[in-house]
Amino acid sequence: MTWGRQMAENQMWGGRFAGGPSAIMSAINASIEVDQRLWRQDIAASLAHAAMLAEAGIISTADASAIKTGLQDIAAAIEAQQLSFTADLEDIHMNIEAELTRRIGEPGRRLHTARSRNDQVATDFRLWVRDALDGLDAALLDLQRGLLAQAGLHAGTVMPGFTHLQIAQPITFGHHLLAYVEMFARDRGRARDARERLNECPLGAAALAGTSYPIDRTQTAHALGFREPMRNSLDAVSARDFACEYIGVAALTATHLSRLAEELVLWTSPLFGFVRLSDAYTSGSSIMPQKRNPDAAELIRAKAARITGSLTAMLGVVKALPLAYAKDLQEDKALVFEAADALALSMAAMTGMIGDLEANPEAMRAAAAKGYANATDLADWLVQHLGIPFREAHHITGTIVKLAETRGQALEDLPLTDLQSVEPRITQGVHDVLPLDKSVASRNSFGGSAPAQVRAQIAYWTEKLS
Amino acid sequence: MTWGRQMAENQMWGGRFAGGPSAIMSAINASIEVDQRLWRQDIAASLAHAAMLAEAGIISTADASAIKTGLQDIAAAIEAQQLSFTADLEDIHMNIEAELTRRIGEPGRRLHTARSRNDQVATDFRLWVRDALDGLDAALLDLQRGLLAQAGLHAGTVMPGFTHLQIAQPITFGHHLLAYVEMFARDRGRARDARERLNECPLGAAALAGTSYPIDRTQTAHALGFREPMRNSLDAVSARDFACEYIGVAALTATHLSRLAEELVLWTSPLFGFVRLSDAYTSGSSIMPQKRNPDAAELIRAKAARITGSLTAMLGVVKALPLAYAKDLQEDKALVFEAADALALSMAAMTGMIGDLEANPEAMRAAAAKGYANATDLADWLVQHLGIPFREAHHITGTIVKLAETRGQALEDLPLTDLQSVEPRITQGVHDVLPLDKSVASRNSFGGSAPAQVRAQIAYWTEKLS
Amino acid sequence: MTWGRQMAENQMWGGRFAGGPSAIMSAINASIEVDQRLWRQDIAASLAHAAMLAEAGIISTADASAIKTGLQDIAAAIEAQQLSFTADLEDIHMNIEAELTRRIGEPGRRLHTARSRNDQVATDFRLWVRDALDGLDAALLDLQRGLLAQAGLHAGTVMPGFTHLQIAQPITFGHHLLAYVEMFARDRGRARDARERLNECPLGAAALAGTSYPIDRTQTAHALGFREPMRNSLDAVSARDFACEYIGVAALTATHLSRLAEELVLWTSPLFGFVRLSDAYTSGSSIMPQKRNPDAAELIRAKAARITGSLTAMLGVVKALPLAYAKDLQEDKALVFEAADALALSMAAMTGMIGDLEANPEAMRAAAAKGYANATDLADWLVQHLGIPFREAHHITGTIVKLAETRGQALEDLPLTDLQSVEPRITQGVHDVLPLDKSVASRNSFGGSAPAQVRAQIAYWTEKLS
Amino acid sequence: MTWGRQMAENQMWGGRFAGGPSAIMSAINASIEVDQRLWRQDIAASLAHAAMLAEAGIISTADASAIKTGLQDIAAAIEAQQLSFTADLEDIHMNIEAELTRRIGEPGRRLHTARSRNDQVATDFRLWVRDALDGLDAALLDLQRGLLAQAGLHAGTVMPGFTHLQIAQPITFGHHLLAYVEMFARDRGRARDARERLNECPLGAAALAGTSYPIDRTQTAHALGFREPMRNSLDAVSARDFACEYIGVAALTATHLSRLAEELVLWTSPLFGFVRLSDAYTSGSSIMPQKRNPDAAELIRAKAARITGSLTAMLGVVKALPLAYAKDLQEDKALVFEAADALALSMAAMTGMIGDLEANPEAMRAAAAKGYANATDLADWLVQHLGIPFREAHHITGTIVKLAETRGQALEDLPLTDLQSVEPRITQGVHDVLPLDKSVASRNSFGGSAPAQVRAQIAYWTEKLS
Repeated sequence: MTWGRQMAENQMWGGRFAGGPSAIMSAINASIEVDQRLWRQDIAASLAHAAMLAEAGIISTADASAIKTGLQDIAAAIEAQQLSFTADLEDIHMNIEAELTRRIGEPGRRLHTARSRNDQVATDFRLWVRDALDGLDAALLDLQRGLLAQAGLHAGTVMPGFTHLQIAQPITFGHHLLAYVEMFARDRGRARDARERLNECPLGAAALAGTSYPIDRTQTAHALGFREPMRNSLDAVSARDFACEYIGVAALTATHLSRLAEELVLWTSPLFGFVRLSDAYTSGSSIMPQKRNPDAAELIRAKAARITGSLTAMLGVVKALPLAYAKDLQEDKALVFEAADALALSMAAMTGMIGDLEANPEAMRAAAAKGYANATDLADWLVQHLGIPFREAHHITGTIVKLAETRGQALEDLPLTDLQSVEPRITQGVHDVLPLDKSVASRNSFGGSAPAQVRAQIAYWTEKLS
Repeated sequence: MTWGRQMAENQMWGGRFAGGPSAIMSAINASIEVDQRLWRQDIAASLAHAAMLAEAGIISTADASAIKTGLQDIAAAIEAQQLSFTADLEDIHMNIEAELTRRIGEPGRRLHTARSRNDQVATDFRLWVRDALDGLDAALLDLQRGLLAQAGLHAGTVMPGFTHLQIAQPITFGHHLLAYVEMFARDRGRARDARERLNECPLGAAALAGTSYPIDRTQTAHALGFREPMRNSLDAVSARDFACEYIGVAALTATHLSRLAEELVLWTSPLFGFVRLSDAYTSGSSIMPQKRNPDAAELIRAKAARITGSLTAMLGVVKALPLAYAKDLQEDKALVFEAADALALSMAAMTGMIGDLEANPEAMRAAAAKGYANATDLADWLVQHLGIPFREAHHITGTIVKLAETRGQALEDLPLTDLQSVEPRITQGVHDVLPLDKSVASRNSFGGSAPAQVRAQIAYWTEKLS
Repeated sequence: MTWGRQMAENQMWGGRFAGGPSAIMSAINASIEVDQRLWRQDIAASLAHAAMLAEAGIISTADASAIKTGLQDIAAAIEAQQLSFTADLEDIHMNIEAELTRRIGEPGRRLHTARSRNDQVATDFRLWVRDALDGLDAALLDLQRGLLAQAGLHAGTVMPGFTHLQIAQPITFGHHLLAYVEMFARDRGRARDARERLNECPLGAAALAGTSYPIDRTQTAHALGFREPMRNSLDAVSARDFACEYIGVAALTATHLSRLAEELVLWTSPLFGFVRLSDAYTSGSSIMPQKRNPDAAELIRAKAARITGSLTAMLGVVKALPLAYAKDLQEDKALVFEAADALALSMAAMTGMIGDLEANPEAMRAAAAKGYANATDLADWLVQHLGIPFREAHHITGTIVKLAETRGQALEDLPLTDLQSVEPRITQGVHDVLPLDKSVASRNSFGGSAPAQVRAQIAYWTEKLS
Repeated sequence: MTWGRQMAENQMWGGRFAGGPSAIMSAINASIEVDQRLWRQDIAASLAHAAMLAEAGIISTADASAIKTGLQDIAAAIEAQQLSFTADLEDIHMNIEAELTRRIGEPGRRLHTARSRNDQVATDFRLWVRDALDGLDAALLDLQRGLLAQAGLHAGTVMPGFTHLQIAQPITFGHHLLAYVEMFARDRGRARDARERLNECPLGAAALAGTSYPIDRTQTAHALGFREPMRNSLDAVSARDFACEYIGVAALTATHLSRLAEELVLWTSPLFGFVRLSDAYTSGSSIMPQKRNPDAAELIRAKAARITGSLTAMLGVVKALPLAYAKDLQEDKALVFEAADALALSMAAMTGMIGDLEANPEAMRAAAAKGYANATDLADWLVQHLGIPFREAHHITGTIVKLAETRGQALEDLPLTDLQSVEPRITQGVHDVLPLDKSVASRNSFGGSAPAQVRAQIAYWTEKLS
C-alpha cells in the first residue's frame, strides 16, 4: 500500500473527496483495484470470443490471430509484473482492451464486437467463482484428510461427550473428529452443486438483449469449459444468484469451521487441557510461557461472522433490483472476494492446526470420568437384561445415581447390594457395561462411539477420499 | 389467539414473567407452540422406529402392534382436532408419547427405547424440511408455468429494456418474463440439491453417541424415505446445516421474487402503466378508484428482507457451537417455520398476480420509443456493412445521436443526408435495422430478444415443464 | 392457538392458500393477529385526537364526549376479554373504530376526521416502542442491581482473569461482574437516547401531506406525552428509523447478555465448576442428576442471534423505499414485537440466573493458581524496584518463568537464589507481590482488580442505582 | 497495490499460504495493513501516556521529553511519507514503538510501562471512531444544507405525493426534500449520542486487570479529550459496543441515503423525468447520449446493503465472547473502516448530486394531474361544509370519482349538476379546493404540504443549521 492512499484515508471526510465530483465518480466507477483479480479470466474469455468471431466470419482470421498473440503477450506481461493498470481506464476489461489496441492497433478495436461489458464481466466473474469453488473443494479435501489422520490415531481415545457443555456420555476423540469429516463432506457437496449450477455461459448476451451478429454462443461456452450458453440474455447479465450461492456455501463452511474452532479454544484452555496446538499456530507471551493463545482458532470464529455479513450484504444488494444491469451489482465482486479471502485463510489455518495438534488422552479420560457419564448404560442394561420398559429403567437409574452421589462414589464402585436395594433383580453382570471403556465399546450401533464403529467409518472415508 | 395471551404480551416487562423462574423456564423449555407443526413427522418416525424395534427383537411384536394402533389413533385424533397439547409436556414428542401411554399403557413406555429426543427431533425436522423443499419445488413449477403462459401471449410485445432504469434497447415482454423462468429454474435446482443432501437419517444416533441396542438404522432410514442412515452419531444430532441451507434456498428464491415484485410495483405505477393487476391482488381506495395499490408485490419485497434476516439469525445461532446438542438449537424450528411461511405467502401471491395480470402493449411500446434505444443497431450496422471497427462505429453513432437530439428527431426519422454528413458511406439500408420491431427482431442470437428466439425458448420450457 | 390454524399450516403449500386470491390477500392485508398488541396505544391516541377535534371545533363536544365514553368502554371490554377481533376488519384500528360506531353510532363515524391510518399507526407504534424502551430500562436496572449484589459478595473472591480463554492474571469475581454493570449502563443510555429521539408525534400528518382541517397538533402531541409534533408530514408517516434504532438497542443488549450467558455456560461446565445455577434455571436429567443444563443461558445466546436477524431484516425492509408509505412497512411491527419478546425473555432469565447463582470460590482460586498468572507482577516489580526498562524486565521475567516451569514450581515457590541467578539484584521483597492475593491487591489503579477498587466501584454504582 | 500481492491472490488456494504456518500466522497476526490508519491516534495516546508517567514519577522527565520529541518526529516522518511499516512488527503500535526505540534508545523501552496493547488499541480505536462520528456529523450538516437550498427553490413546486408508488395527493418538491432534512437530523442526533457514550478512556486498564503503577488515569483521559477514565478495566479492554453502535449509526444513515437514492433513480428515469442530474454525477454512454445513468445513486443503494452486512458481522463477532480480550476482536477495525469508507463515499456522492440536480417542474406537475389526487379534498369539503361524518363523506366521494372516471374527466371538470346528482347539497364552493394548487395550499396543518408550511419549515431549519 502506498502512503498516498493511506494519508488520504486518514483525512477521510475532509480530504478524500475534496477533489470534488470527479474524485467521487472515480471512486464509484473505477473498479480496477477490485476487479484486477479477474485478469486471467478476462483474457481467457477474450481469447475464446475472438476465435469464435473469426470462425463465424465476423472478424478476419488475421485479426483474430493478432488478437490472440496480443492477449497472450499481455498475460505474460502481467505474470511478469510488467504491466500496471490505471484507474483512468476504470476496470480490468478496459485496461486489457486498451493495452491490446496499443500493442496491435486496429484489430484490437474489433475485439469488442458482438459483446458488451455486461456479458463480459458476468462471464469473467463466473469463471472466477468456478475456480474458487474448485479451490474450496480441494482445500476441504485436505482438511478432511487431516481430520481423518488424527481420527486414525484416536479411534479408541476416550473423551467426554458433551451436551450443553455438560458431560453426557463417553465417546472417543476419533469419533468426535469424524463428525467434522461429515460436515465438510456436505460442504463439498454444496460447492460442487453450486459449480454445476453456475457453469453456463453469459457471453453473447451483450448489453442485455443479445446481438444481431451471427455469433456461435455454444462455441465460446465450450471453449471456456461451460456446459452451455445461458438461454436468456436478460438473465445472463442480471443474475447474481451464483455469487449469492457461493457466499452462502462459504458462510456454511465457515460456520462449520467456527464450531471446530470453538472446540479448539475450549480444548486448549488450561481448564480442559485436551489438546496442545503447535507453536506454529499459537501466539505466545514471552512473559507467560504457559500461555499459548489459540489466535488462529479465534480468528476463524470471527471470520465466520464476517462471511455471514458478506452474505447478508450480497442478498441485500440484489434485493428488489429490476432487470437488467444496475450499478448496484458492482459491489458483488468486492463481497465475493472478501468472503473468499476470509475463507481461504480460515481453511489454511484450520488444516494447519489439525495437522499439528497433539491430543492429551490422559486429560480427556480424566474428564470423562467426572460425573455419571455411564448412567445411560445402567438404564439400557435394565431394559436389555430385565425387560423393564425404558421409561421405568430411566427412573430406577435416577434413584441409583442419586444414591451414588450421596456416597460420593462412581456407579461402577457402588456395591451390588446397594444396586439391589433399588432394584433387586440387578446382577453382577451390570459391571460388564459400567467401566468407561466398556461403555464406549457398547455403543456399537451404526455410526456410534464404539471404536469398532469409528474404525469402520475411518476405513470408509479413507477409501472415499483416496 | 386467546385474550389471555394477548393481555400478557401487553404487559410484557412487568407481567409475563412475574410468575418467576417457573414462568421463565416454561417459556424457555416449552416448544410445543412452535414444534406442534412436526406432529405428522413425529408419528411417522415413531411408527418406523417401533416396527424396527420389533423386527430386531428389542420389543415384542405385540407391543409394536399396540404402539402402531395407538399412534394411528392419535394421528386421527389430531386430524379431527380432538386432541389438545399442553406446555407441561414441553414439546410435541413428549405430548404424543404421553398420550400414547395414556391410551395403550406399558407398551407406550417401551417406544422410547434406543432413541433419544436428540435424534428424534433431528429426524422429524429433516422430514419437515424435506416436505417444505418438495412443496417449494412444486410451487416454483406453478409460477414458472404462469410466467410461461404470459410470455406466450407476449413473445412479440415490444417494451423498453432497461439498464440503470434508463431505457437501453427494445426487448419484448415475453423475453423479460422468461428471465424469471430461468431464475426460478435455478431455485428449483437448489431446492432439489438441498433435499438430496439432507436426505439421510439421524434416527438411532440416540443422545449423541449411538446405542448398545442391536438396532437396524438402515431399516428405519428406508422406511422414512431416507437414502441411508447418517454415518456419525455426533453429527446426526448436532448438524443444522440442512436448516441453514433450506433458509438459504428460501432467501435466494425470495430475492428473485422481490426483483419481480419491484418490477410489478414500477410497471403498475401510473408513470409506467405497463401492467394492470387484477382486483384480487390490489388493495384499492374507495375514495380514489384509480388507485390500485400493489400491496402483494410490496409485501413480497419485505418478505425477502425478512427471510434474509432469518438466514442471518440461523447462521448466528449455529456459529461457534461446540458439539453435540445445545439448547441454542431449539431456535432452529422457529426460524425455519417463519422463513417457510413468509416464502409460501410470497409464492402464492406472486403466482396469483402473474396469472391475472394484463399487459398494456401500447404503453410499453410508447415507452420503448422514448430515447434512442436503437442506437446500438446503428453502430452494429456500421460494423457489419461498412467494416468499421466496433469502437469507431460506436463513436460515429454517438455523433449521429447527438445530431438527432439537436433536431429533436428519432434516429429513424433523420434524413439519409444527415447520416451521411457524419459518415458518407451510410446507405438507405440502415433503415432496415432502425425501426423498433426490426431492432428487436435483429437480435437473433441464442437467447436474444428476437421474437423467434423468445418463441424457441418458450417451446423449450413448455416441453421441459410438462 | 386453534387447531384450525395449526392444520392449515401443516398443509402449507397445498392448503393454506387454496382458498385462492382472497385467502392470499387476507393473509397480506390482515395484520390484526400482529397489531392487536397496539390496542391500548390506539385507544389512547383516539382519545387525544377526539378531544382535540372538539376543542378545535371540528366535531361537537357532544360527539367527543360520546366517543370518549365509547372508547373507554371498549378498553374495559378488551381488558375483561369480552371483545374479539376479526380479520375482516383488517387491523386493530378498524376493529376498534367499527366497534365504536356499533356502540355509539354516528359520532363514531366522525372520529376518523383529519387523520388517516398512516399517521394513526405511526403514532400507536411510537407509543408502543416508547413503552418498550422504558420497560427495557427498568429491566436493565433490575439486572444491574442483581449483578451488584453478587459483586458485593465477591469483591475479594479471587478468580482467573482470561484472555483467549487462557489464564492471564488473577482478578476477582466481583470485578468481573462489574464489567457487565458498565455494559448494561451503556445499554440503558442507548435506550434513553432512542426514547428521546422517537418522542415526537406523527398524528395529524394524515395520509402523507397533512390536512386542511384546523387541527392543533401540539395539543395531541402533549396529550400523548410527546415532546412536540413532527415537523414534516411525509417524514411522519414514512420514518421507521425509530423501529430500526429500537431493534438496534435490543440487539446490542442481547449481545451483551450473550457474552454473560457464554460465561455462565463455561462456568457451570464441570471442567470449570466456578458457579452453580439454581434448580429453577437449569434443566436436569432424571438419569444424570449431576447434569444441570444451563438451558436458559444457551437460549440467551441464541436469542442474540435472533435479534441480530431481526435488525438485518428491518434495515432490509426500509432500504431503498421511496416516500411515502409502502406496504413493505407493515412488516415492521412483527419484527419489533419479535425482537422485544426475545429480549424480554432473555432479560428475565438472566436476571433470575444472576440473582440465584452460587459462586464456588475454591474452584475459582484453584484455577487462578494454574499457570503463571503472577508473571506480570514480577516484571512490574523489576521495573519499579530496580529501574529496569519495561521491555527488558519483560524479557528477564520470561527467563525466570521458563526456569520455574522446568522445576515444576510456582513463581512464588522458587528460591531467591534461583531468581538471582537470572537477575542478581532481585531481593526478598519480590515476595510481597507474588502471592495471588497480593497480586490482585496490587492492581490498585482506578478501575483495577484490587478489592479496594472493586469496593469503590460497588459503592459508586450502589448510589447511582438507588 | 503491488503486483506481488495481486498474483498471490490469484493463486489463492494453492499459493498464498503455501509458505506454510508462518505465512498463515502472519496473515492472522499482522494487522498493520488495516490498523496503520490509527497512527495519529496511537501517537497522540502515547504522548499523553508518557506525560502522565513522568508527572506520576514513573519515568523521568528527561525520558518523557525524549519520548515526546521522538514521537513528534515520527509523526512528521509519517506525514511526509518517509516511514514505512513492516508486517514483521505486526501492528501500528509495535511499528511506532520500535521506531521510537530505534531513534531514542532506552527511553523508548520505558514507554510501554503501565499499559498493554489491549488498552492501547482500545484507546486508539475509540479516538478514531470519535473522529469518524464528528466527520459524519459535519458531512450530514452539509447534506442538510444542500437539501435545504433545493427545498428553498421548490417550496411551491407541485409534484405528486406517492404511496405504494401510486399517485396519492399533490405535494411540493420542497416538502418532499425536507422530509430528508428531518431524517438526517435524527442521524446526526444518533452520531452525537454515540460520540458522547464512547467518550471515556480505556487507557490504564493494561492487559485486563489494571496495574500496580501509581498512574493517573484521569490525566490521560482529559489529555485525550475523554470525559473520564472507564470505571472497569475488564470492560475497558473487552467492550466493543462503541464499534457496533458506530456501524449501527452508519447503517441507518446509509439506509436513509438509499431511500433518497432510490428516488433519484426513479426521478431520473425517462418515465418520470422529474429531475436531471449533472454530468458530473452520471455516467453516460457515448452511443446513447440521452442515457444518463445514475450510477452514484445506485451505488449508494448497494452501500447501504454493504454497511448492514458490516453491522451483522460486527454483532456476530462479539456475540457470546467471554471476557476479556480475544483475537476475534481484531476483526473490529476492518469492519468499522469498511463501513466508514462506504458511508463517506455515499455521503459525498449524495451531497454532490443534491447540490447539482435540476428539477423539472413541468414534468412533476403533469404527473400530479394524473389520477384523482384531489379526491380527499372533496371528501374533506363535504365534512367541513356540509357536516357529513367523515366515513360517509369518504363514501360519497368514491361514488363521484367513479362517475368522473366513467366520463373520463378530472374532478374539477365535472359539472356541478353531476356532483349534485350524488350529493344534492354540494355547492359551487367545492371548486375552491379542487385545483392542484388550491389542494396543495389547503393542507396547511403544521408540517403539511402547503407552501406556507414548507416555507416555515425552511425558515426553521435555516436558522437551526446556521
